[in-house]
Amino acid sequence: MKDDEQLIRDLISNWQELSANGDLSQMLNLMDEDVVFLIPGRPPMRGRDEFAASFRGVTRQFHLESSSDIQEIRVAGDWAYAWTHLTVTMTPLAESGSPVRRNGYTLTIFRKNGEGSWVLFRDANLLANAQEA
Amino acid sequence: MKDDEQLIRDLISNWQELSANGDLSQMLNLMDEDVVFLIPGRPPMRGRDEFAASFRGVTRQFHLESSSDIQEIRVAGDWAYAWTHLTVTMTPLAESGSPVRRNGYTLTIFRKNGEGSWVLFRDANLLANAQEA
Repeated sequence: MKDDEQLIRDLISNWQELSANGDLSQMLNLMDEDVVFLIPGRPPMRGRDEFAASFRGVTRQFHLESSSDIQEIRVAGDWAYAWTHLTVTMTPLAESGSPVRRNGYTLTIFRKNGEGSWVLFRDANLLANAQEA
Repeated sequence: MKDDEQLIRDLISNWQELSANGDLSQMLNLMDEDVVFLIPGRPPMRGRDEFAASFRGVTRQFHLESSSDIQEIRVAGDWAYAWTHLTVTMTPLAESGSPVRRNGYTLTIFRKNGEGSWVLFRDANLLANAQEA
């Protein structure tokens, strides 16, 4: 049986693969129903529906590739946190336009749900600045 | 005896008062020796010494006032997290220059240390944009 830290590593890598594939419905299973995403300069994004609307908006225009360099994972019972250095490349689906790369840190709270699966619960994403890739 | 949530509320309010008073040495007691602060567009600030150097740099030029609107505190054993909406007003000590106000969200991990006191352990501060107050 995998330990909790490995399960959280798997969740992070799974998230990135699903995001690259635009597989929103599977992504929603990786977050709590009452998830909150904090992003600089914007109001908190609350719940699966707000995430879904935002993700659909982005993926109508861009293909997303992301990679996480996990700095730390710490588990305490049914709770855990991780901080990572994240790089996201957004490539316009239209033939015009250049890919944009953003990078920065994230701090995420995870929770083990009733079925023993870990899900995202609170996420602070500090990716603020964009530059051409 | 106060419960842990109240102790964390006290810590946050204590932090703000000490910050306004420029009382760095007391602030350092409110953070873990290996604290990490994540800030948009900058490398992580690690440990009390890096915090102290940064705080001294800012408070040589500005008086700080901050207020937190705590959105959530959750405690699990010796660990806890909080997210807040934070407003910071930086008033130049020089007579020229206008106060600058910044606001945004924070997500913070707290840890109960061996003496039963809560300290800051990981902090993501999403205050990115400045505007004149």
